[in-house]
Amino acid sequence: MNIGIIGLGYWGPNIVRNFYTLPEVKIIIGCDQNVDRLKLIKEKFPQIRLVADSSELLRDKSIDAVVIATPVESHFRLAEAALRSGKHVWIEKPLTRKSSDAFQLIDLAERSKKIVMVDHTFVYTGAVRKMKEIVERGELGIPYYFDSVRANLGLFQSDINVMWDLVPHDLSILQLLINKKPLAVSAHGLAKFNSVEHLAYVFLYLEDGFVAHFTSNWTSPVKIRRIILGGTKKMMLYDDMETDEKIKVYDKGLTLESTEVDPYNPLQILYRTGDMYSPKVEQKEALGVAAKEFIDSIVLNRPPLTGLREGVDVVRILEAAEQSIKSRGKLVELDQWETKILGTSNLVRT
Amino acid sequence: MNIGIIGLGYWGPNIVRNFYTLPEVKIIIGCDQNVDRLKLIKEKFPQIRLVADSSELLRDKSIDAVVIATPVESHFRLAEAALRSGKHVWIEKPLTRKSSDAFQLIDLAERSKKIVMVDHTFVYTGAVRKMKEIVERGELGIPYYFDSVRANLGLFQSDINVMWDLVPHDLSILQLLINKKPLAVSAHGLAKFNSVEHLAYVFLYLEDGFVAHFTSNWTSPVKIRRIILGGTKKMMLYDDMETDEKIKVYDKGLTLESTEVDPYNPLQILYRTGDMYSPKVEQKEALGVAAKEFIDSIVLNRPPLTGLREGVDVVRILEAAEQSIKSRGKLVELDQWETKILGTSNLVRT
Amino acid sequence: MNIGIIGLGYWGPNIVRNFYTLPEVKIIIGCDQNVDRLKLIKEKFPQIRLVADSSELLRDKSIDAVVIATPVESHFRLAEAALRSGKHVWIEKPLTRKSSDAFQLIDLAERSKKIVMVDHTFVYTGAVRKMKEIVERGELGIPYYFDSVRANLGLFQSDINVMWDLVPHDLSILQLLINKKPLAVSAHGLAKFNSVEHLAYVFLYLEDGFVAHFTSNWTSPVKIRRIILGGTKKMMLYDDMETDEKIKVYDKGLTLESTEVDPYNPLQILYRTGDMYSPKVEQKEALGVAAKEFIDSIVLNRPPLTGLREGVDVVRILEAAEQSIKSRGKLVELDQWETKILGTSNLVRT
Amino acid sequence: MNIGIIGLGYWGPNIVRNFYTLPEVKIIIGCDQNVDRLKLIKEKFPQIRLVADSSELLRDKSIDAVVIATPVESHFRLAEAALRSGKHVWIEKPLTRKSSDAFQLIDLAERSKKIVMVDHTFVYTGAVRKMKEIVERGELGIPYYFDSVRANLGLFQSDINVMWDLVPHDLSILQLLINKKPLAVSAHGLAKFNSVEHLAYVFLYLEDGFVAHFTSNWTSPVKIRRIILGGTKKMMLYDDMETDEKIKVYDKGLTLESTEVDPYNPLQILYRTGDMYSPKVEQKEALGVAAKEFIDSIVLNRPPLTGLREGVDVVRILEAAEQSIKSRGKLVELDQWETKILGTSNLVRT
Repeated sequence: MNIGIIGLGYWGPNIVRNFYTLPEVKIIIGCDQNVDRLKLIKEKFPQIRLVADSSELLRDKSIDAVVIATPVESHFRLAEAALRSGKHVWIEKPLTRKSSDAFQLIDLAERSKKIVMVDHTFVYTGAVRKMKEIVERGELGIPYYFDSVRANLGLFQSDINVMWDLVPHDLSILQLLINKKPLAVSAHGLAKFNSVEHLAYVFLYLEDGFVAHFTSNWTSPVKIRRIILGGTKKMMLYDDMETDEKIKVYDKGLTLESTEVDPYNPLQILYRTGDMYSPKVEQKEALGVAAKEFIDSIVLNRPPLTGLREGVDVVRILEAAEQSIKSRGKLVELDQWETKILGTSNLVRT
Repeated sequence: MNIGIIGLGYWGPNIVRNFYTLPEVKIIIGCDQNVDRLKLIKEKFPQIRLVADSSELLRDKSIDAVVIATPVESHFRLAEAALRSGKHVWIEKPLTRKSSDAFQLIDLAERSKKIVMVDHTFVYTGAVRKMKEIVERGELGIPYYFDSVRANLGLFQSDINVMWDLVPHDLSILQLLINKKPLAVSAHGLAKFNSVEHLAYVFLYLEDGFVAHFTSNWTSPVKIRRIILGGTKKMMLYDDMETDEKIKVYDKGLTLESTEVDPYNPLQILYRTGDMYSPKVEQKEALGVAAKEFIDSIVLNRPPLTGLREGVDVVRILEAAEQSIKSRGKLVELDQWETKILGTSNLVRT
Repeated sequence: MNIGIIGLGYWGPNIVRNFYTLPEVKIIIGCDQNVDRLKLIKEKFPQIRLVADSSELLRDKSIDAVVIATPVESHFRLAEAALRSGKHVWIEKPLTRKSSDAFQLIDLAERSKKIVMVDHTFVYTGAVRKMKEIVERGELGIPYYFDSVRANLGLFQSDINVMWDLVPHDLSILQLLINKKPLAVSAHGLAKFNSVEHLAYVFLYLEDGFVAHFTSNWTSPVKIRRIILGGTKKMMLYDDMETDEKIKVYDKGLTLESTEVDPYNPLQILYRTGDMYSPKVEQKEALGVAAKEFIDSIVLNRPPLTGLREGVDVVRILEAAEQSIKSRGKLVELDQWETKILGTSNLVRT
Repeated sequence: MNIGIIGLGYWGPNIVRNFYTLPEVKIIIGCDQNVDRLKLIKEKFPQIRLVADSSELLRDKSIDAVVIATPVESHFRLAEAALRSGKHVWIEKPLTRKSSDAFQLIDLAERSKKIVMVDHTFVYTGAVRKMKEIVERGELGIPYYFDSVRANLGLFQSDINVMWDLVPHDLSILQLLINKKPLAVSAHGLAKFNSVEHLAYVFLYLEDGFVAHFTSNWTSPVKIRRIILGGTKKMMLYDDMETDEKIKVYDKGLTLESTEVDPYNPLQILYRTGDMYSPKVEQKEALGVAAKEFIDSIVLNRPPLTGLREGVDVVRILEAAEQSIKSRGKLVELDQWETKILGTSNLVRT
């Protein structure tokens, strides 16, 4: 299989390196408008072929799949062109800036029978996959809230705000762990330095009374990467700043029990606290696992774990949150939709 | 000076102990409806006098000041009665459940020329006073956001939700550090177990574009007590779970500078990171410092550091936030008001 | 039962308070030469009787048992007098300064049929008892080393060095967890400020190739309280500075396996790393548990968990270590001894 | 300048990569007996030339300097051959297994007028260089002890024990920070699994009463990398496991003062505790800084920061410690020596 990679910036060399480790990948063609980037990539990967013009790459019949690692505003245009050229497509998160564009891509992918995968990298980390296992085997009981904080002194981006930059990670983790429809969103932000928010809070209502809250901050003196997932039986903490104990499962819970002791307070909250454990987490590089998932989806002609369905939901929520920020927290309801097709198959991933 | 203390529950013995250490305090009369509590207090403090009926205590002419440490719903009634009986009043936080009640107390305190102090205890800790010093000498530049998280596996209260329980602490710290008018509030909550919220997020707009966000959570597997205060020059972290290094001041900042390098991006965010330091913090028990402030305010006939003005603002914000939670985040504007009088003087504390 | 407590310094009020909570204890007589201490104790515990002279207390026939909480140099003299007066005895750690004195106490206790307990407080903490459980059920496999660090910016004592002050805690924990004879000791110290060591390292050889190392430091900028216990199956970490997760059990190990892969290296070390867990630890105050153990030993006429056998072993090791420090690490062999009697019974505690 | 690199194992690719970044380096020839390693290196660095036989490399006249990154037992033989072939030499730590070999290298280096540098990598980290600055400007007052702990679940080496593996790092840091002669050493170790110690404690006496202690452990469930340097004015903590705050300087100290308060205790220890700060540390890769130091030493014909003098002292101390371990802690005095020449110059580095 031959891969074209458009956009060789900060993340580019990691993508090239990981695709080179896959035995299925024979030729990689890299593409960037910036000549200095091309030179730098050539030094690191002497076997790579390089072009400066993405349309040249897209016209190349030998290329089976295209990776789009450019700024988000060009995602739609490039993905559309790639699909029309008959390529499978990998897109860096977030999928697009507008959900209408994302829906067009769904349509296009269906017609062209091509795979589209969104690089929600965290979904492919050992830690998140371990969390998925724990949730799936019912260890937490019924999960009822998700609270994430993602903060650091961050690289301001000129085209997107902190929410579009950081919250996709947490939304994709939420999606994987909790299979519930998002219903409505309310958000607030602060743009102190220019017109781009560097601090944003998003509150999300989901089905069945589940709620999620996301703090994203480019102006924090300390780096925080922390998710709490509360369940009726146990609670889970994911701290990505820990080297060895990224996940902790607490045998702590609350139950509402009837009691005869207090006539004024017949139902009482009872606490339970027990041991904590921290499961061993696999150390494989997430981007490598993701690259393999992309190749496997193509070979087996099945939807990838993070395909258009997942990508479009992230975009819809962020789009609604952005609208909410502009109206200072006004609740924005999310339209309901059902994908009939995902990737190249008509099976809904379960 | 003779002190009456109404309500001898969990917090009561601490109040009694701290008032006994003050040389100005001669006699303490304790009061609780619960006979077991009275017995327990008598064992710890054999010199104390006890009554079961608060009206008996309020009728006692020898009592100069009354401490109200009962559940919040009785605060207004007891404070009103105490003021009408000519006593100075100390009230545990939050001041009242309704801002209309709080305004009535302001009125009453003015007419009776008595001191009313709200026990916003954190304001009297060494850590918060050190933060105040650092902000006041301009070390942070212009502060522009306040982010607090207060979470633990908490004692559910039957009468108030997690926000009314925990957020007063952070609001009173915010008040002390940042002297800005609150303008509007938006909030969300979750009540999974009964009708009382155990998880709540409050976003507060203040004057001059300053924003504050408060996470309060009774259903967290880990205890978190953390405030970040961002400034244009430096940033400050307050982590109350640290034993020795509660406050850290980071010489980290962002500046917007014009640059000739990039014509497409003439104004660029520049980062600056330097040393961090953690100032030594005084270890005095906060409640003792607060008790002394109360006595001093009475003796010197001046408003206390946390008087009715501070108490009413906390109540107004929480009241608005509660209304916002009910309407799923709808922005609630705060009416503007000016106190003409505070405590017994007509001077606004500066 | 009536208790006399000699020495009401820093630790005294805690002892008084804990003995008062026991239903078996009727009368407590406190004793201290310092009149100010007596006044302070009277304020806190109005029901206490006080004397300034310890011999008056020892002559009092109504007193059944005596607590010795004075500086270590007076331990032997007071314990001897108490035993001769027919009292049971509780002694603060370390038991005595000289092992010859400790052996005399063993002799005397045997003849007088009285209980002598040494207050190795840590043995009575929930954390250490939990560690004991884990070791006893064989979870660690065969334990093979013990490494403790106890450091802080400490209260220099005028009569004993840092080793005599801090290492008894860790030696008593080692004794409880690992039932092995100490064989020989080598130690080093530093006395920078006066003639008293404030920094000391002790290495202890025990039976079966087990080794233990103790770092004790009064001149550390940070407080460290950490023990590692290595076993062939699992390893355990005890960090007393943690609030909630004091004990962590790591499913990590090494095995020596024969391998055919590498002819030059037929036996290879293989690593195994799995989950970690942190067991829930009971929160009871250790001193209260210890006080109960003392009363129970008297009532049931059985040796206490930390009796003379345990106390004398700690003293012998410290005495040898002190000698080793003076000769810059020279190995000092420990004489072997067998107690025939312990406390009032002739049963060796198992 | 052309560089030959002998030994392309675990550390090899890092060496190759760092030497390639230096503009002075033109050609690199790699050498390893293992053909698989050669292939792997060729894939990463297609421009490299490779040979399997080190004598071929040493005969190559175009090579100016040789890096020896082989197991320690071959260090002396290869370094000797390289010096006799007229090459400058870089040797991985530890310099040699025997100090007699190290002294021969000193002799040989003097006669051949070539540079020999030992790769004490930590000396070139931003953190250690910052510590050096702080010590040099007298901020700590007079340093009086050094305590290091280096522990993890480690890669057992077949040829050297844990002490030879880990303690060179800390000894080289000690050397840089504290310019004092080592006088005598006492050490203990444990070899539970085979004949190689995996746990070792080294105590080192230096001039002027300075002491140092080193804990090295391959069988720890947790990774610890911590140095405390105590001074009369301030104390410094270096925790290499911290991402951002590797160094903390504590304004904590002790002073011995005469007091009239207590006639029995005329000289009292007084404590002082103030602020802590954590200086910003430069992030450059240490190996790159070291590579530059090597090239600079050659070009400027001056001794490198970590030359033979530093290397031989580390070897002498470890050799004595190994002897002490065998005799269970017996103090081993270090012979005194003075280098007349270091590297190619006869100047002692100051």
